[in-house]
Amino acid sequence: MAPLSAVLDKIDANLDLALARLFKLLEIPSVSTDPAYAAECAKAAEWLAAELKSIGFQASVRATGGHPVVAAHAKAERPDVPHLLFYAHYDVQPPDPLDLWESPPFEPRIEEAGTGKRIVARGAADDKGQLMTFVEACRAFIEAGGLPCHVSILIEGEEETGSPSLPGFIAKNKDELSADMALICDTSMWDRETPAITAMLRGLVLEEVIICGPSRDLHSGMFGGPAVNPIHVLARIIADLHDEEGKVTLPGFYDGVSELPDDIADGWRALRFDETGFLSQAGLSASAGEKGRSVLEMIWSRPTCDVNGIIGGYTGQGSKTVIPAKASAKFSFRLVGAQDPRKIAGSFRSFVKERLPADCRAEFVSHGASAAVELPFSSEALSRAQRALQAEWGKEPVLAGCGGSIPVAGVFKRDFGMDTLMIGFGLDDDRIHSPNEKYELSSFHKGARSWARVLHALAL
Amino acid sequence: MAPLSAVLDKIDANLDLALARLFKLLEIPSVSTDPAYAAECAKAAEWLAAELKSIGFQASVRATGGHPVVAAHAKAERPDVPHLLFYAHYDVQPPDPLDLWESPPFEPRIEEAGTGKRIVARGAADDKGQLMTFVEACRAFIEAGGLPCHVSILIEGEEETGSPSLPGFIAKNKDELSADMALICDTSMWDRETPAITAMLRGLVLEEVIICGPSRDLHSGMFGGPAVNPIHVLARIIADLHDEEGKVTLPGFYDGVSELPDDIADGWRALRFDETGFLSQAGLSASAGEKGRSVLEMIWSRPTCDVNGIIGGYTGQGSKTVIPAKASAKFSFRLVGAQDPRKIAGSFRSFVKERLPADCRAEFVSHGASAAVELPFSSEALSRAQRALQAEWGKEPVLAGCGGSIPVAGVFKRDFGMDTLMIGFGLDDDRIHSPNEKYELSSFHKGARSWARVLHALAL
Repeated sequence: MAPLSAVLDKIDANLDLALARLFKLLEIPSVSTDPAYAAECAKAAEWLAAELKSIGFQASVRATGGHPVVAAHAKAERPDVPHLLFYAHYDVQPPDPLDLWESPPFEPRIEEAGTGKRIVARGAADDKGQLMTFVEACRAFIEAGGLPCHVSILIEGEEETGSPSLPGFIAKNKDELSADMALICDTSMWDRETPAITAMLRGLVLEEVIICGPSRDLHSGMFGGPAVNPIHVLARIIADLHDEEGKVTLPGFYDGVSELPDDIADGWRALRFDETGFLSQAGLSASAGEKGRSVLEMIWSRPTCDVNGIIGGYTGQGSKTVIPAKASAKFSFRLVGAQDPRKIAGSFRSFVKERLPADCRAEFVSHGASAAVELPFSSEALSRAQRALQAEWGKEPVLAGCGGSIPVAGVFKRDFGMDTLMIGFGLDDDRIHSPNEKYELSSFHKGARSWARVLHALAL
Repeated sequence: MAPLSAVLDKIDANLDLALARLFKLLEIPSVSTDPAYAAECAKAAEWLAAELKSIGFQASVRATGGHPVVAAHAKAERPDVPHLLFYAHYDVQPPDPLDLWESPPFEPRIEEAGTGKRIVARGAADDKGQLMTFVEACRAFIEAGGLPCHVSILIEGEEETGSPSLPGFIAKNKDELSADMALICDTSMWDRETPAITAMLRGLVLEEVIICGPSRDLHSGMFGGPAVNPIHVLARIIADLHDEEGKVTLPGFYDGVSELPDDIADGWRALRFDETGFLSQAGLSASAGEKGRSVLEMIWSRPTCDVNGIIGGYTGQGSKTVIPAKASAKFSFRLVGAQDPRKIAGSFRSFVKERLPADCRAEFVSHGASAAVELPFSSEALSRAQRALQAEWGKEPVLAGCGGSIPVAGVFKRDFGMDTLMIGFGLDDDRIHSPNEKYELSSFHKGARSWARVLHALAL
C-alpha cells in the first residue's frame, strides 16, 4: 500500500488536471428526466468508463431499460483487505429556468467568491463534482503504487428520476456488485469547515396524477356551473393532503415513523443549527412545516408531501375562458424510518380515488419509490471514517441526517445486507437543482484528500 | 325600402359568394389573447372595413390601446326609421390544443355531416360566421335598393380577452355610436330548428393570481418540510372557493343574485331541456354544480367561479423534486343579476390575501370585468323580432338566458341606456373555444335571412 502522504501529495500536485477532467464531465448535459437528452446520458457513461479504464479499472458501460450504468472494478495489492462498492450518479437535473443562470449551465467555469474559488455548472455538486473526488483519490493511490482496498464503482444515470432501472440491474449482477461496505459521495458537510457523515437518509415516493373530467376543453360560459372542473378536483385533493398542523393526512402515513432517540435529539440540539440563516437562503423567514418541530428535525427525520409541479387549462398570455378536460400534478413524498414506500403509494392512490366526483377519473404514473435508510451509529468502519475526516479537516465530523433521498442505499441494505457510509462535501448554499449550481473548489480538493484518508483507514 | 322578398331572394342567390367572403375572414388567425397575433388582428379589422366599404358603408379602422375597432355607418333611404347599432367581434380564441383539430383551424372547409353541411374553422361560430350573417343581410338590402333602418356597425377585436379597450372607445365616441337599440349576433338557437332571443347574459370577472413563496426553486429533499410550497397555498385557495353544496364562498358573492320570477322559471321548465344530452356532449353524465339547481338554471341564471388554468413547478417529462418559487392560476367568475364586478374582484383579492401564510405574497392581474345584462321581457322591438324569427323558422323563438358573457351589452345599457337584442344562430355542439369549431351552413344562410326579416320588422 502506498504511503498516505505520497497519495495526498499527488492529489495536491494534480489538482489542475483533476479540474480539467471534471470540466469535461460537466460539459455533457446528461439530464435524465427528459428523453431528448438520452444520447448525452450515454455520452457521460462512456466518458466515465473511459476515464476509469485510463486509471486502471476494468470498466464497462452496461445497458439497462433506461439510461446505462457504468460498472468498474480494481483490486488492491493485498488480497486480505475490505472490498468497497462506491456508488454515484452521472445524471443531472434539468437546468431550467435557463434565464436565471448567470452563465450557461453546461459551460463550467471557476468563479472567485469571497469565500474562495467555486466551480459553477449544472451537476457541479450533484453529483459530478462529488463523484470525481472519489475517482481522483483512486487515481492518486494507483499512481502512487496501488489501491489500499478492493474497489468497485457503480455509477448510474437515473438518480434524479428515482432510479427506475437500478434495482433490477443490481439484482441481476449481485455477485459482481456484492461488497463489504458501500460508499456514497452525494451528501453535504455540516458547514464550510466541518465534515459530516450522513447516518439517516429520507426515502422518496414519486407519483404523478392526471385528473380527467370532460371529454374536451369546454367554454366556461356555456358549461360553467354544471361541468366538473378537473383543476378544482385536483386542488381539493392537494388541499386535503395536509391538516392545520402541517401533518400529512394520508391514512397510515406515519406508520413506521418514530420519535428520535433522546441522545440523537440532544446531539442535534447541541449543533445549534441556524434555522434563520438556512431559511433565509431561500428567501424565507418562517418554518411552514409541522408545528412543534425544529427545522433540522423536519429535514432529517420527518416525512413530507410536496407537489413539485402542476398544470392544467390555459396557461399562456392573457385569459381563455375554458374548463379543461384534464389537470395533472407531480407529488413527492419524503419517507423516514420504517415507512413502506409501496404502502404509501397505495394509500395515496386510494386517497385520490376517494375524492373523485362523478365523471372524473385519475390516471397514475409512478416515477419511483424507495425506503429511508439508517446507518448503525456504532460500527468500526464509521469510527475509522470519523477519525480520517477529523485528520483532514481538523474538526470532529457531525453524524447527520439528510433530507434528500439516495434510494440505492436502501437497495444495498435490502439486497446485500450492506451498510453504506455516506460522506459528501457539498454545502447548503450549493444551489443543487437550482440555477447557478456550484461546488466549492475546496470541497473538490479536500474531498479527494478525504477519500484518500478514508480508503487508507478502512484498509488498516 | 326594398321589398323583403327581393332581399331574401338575393341572400339565397348569393350564398356561395357569401361563403367565399366568410372564408377569407376565417383564414385570418386573429387570436386576441396572444400578442404574437397582433398583426393578424389588425388584418382582420382592415378586411372588415374594406368589406363594409364595398357594400356602401362609411367604414374605418380605429386604433385603441389594444387591438383596433372597426366602425361603420350607413343610412336608410327614409330618415324617420330607427337607428340600430350592430356589435360583433372579429377576434377568436387560441386554437390550441392543435393536435386535436382534424384540419388546420385557419383553413376553413365545408364538412358534410348527417345533419347537413357545416363550416369548420376557429371562429366559424364565435363570432365570424355569426357576424357575417348580419353583414350579408345589409349587403342584400343595399343591393336590392336600400337599408330599412339606419345601421351602425361596431366590431371589436378583444372580446375573447374581456374587451379591455372597448368601454374607453365607446365613451370617447358616444355621439357617433349612440343609437335606438343595439343588436348582437353572438348567441345560440334553442335547438337546430328553434330560434332564440337571449334576454339574460352573464357578466364576467377575469382575475389571474401569482402566489410567490421562496426566492428561488428549492430542492424538495433539502427544504421539504420547513419551506412553504406556493402550489399548496394556491390549491388551498382554490379548494376554499366552493363549499360542499357547490356554492361560491367569497363573502358577498351572492349579493344582487335573485331567484327567477315564477313565470320565467315555469317557461324554462316547459322547455324540457335535455340535461343528459347537453352534458353528454362534454363526456359528462352528472351535473357538478350547485346542488338543487337545474342545468339550465345554472347556465342561464346562476353565477359561477372556475379556474381556467393553473401552472407551477416542474411540468415536463418525468419528475423533478422541486419546491417552486411561484405558482399561478387564472380565475373566471360568471355574474348574474345585479352582482357588482368590482366588488367581486375586490372580495376575491381579499379572500386570497387572507389565505397567504408567512413568506408568501400574491400578485394580481385583471383580465377584465363586466356586469350581467337583462333585457325587459316586454318591449315592442322584442315582439317584432319574435314575429320575424317565427316567420323564418316556423317556430316560436325561445326567450333564453345565456351562460356566456357579452360585456358590451352592459356598457350599452350603462352609457346609452340602450337595450340590446341578442339573436344568434349557434348550436350547442358548435365546439366554440374547442378544437374543430363549426357553424352550420343553415345557421349562416337562414341567419342572414333572419336578420333581413328582423331589420325589415324593426323599420315598420
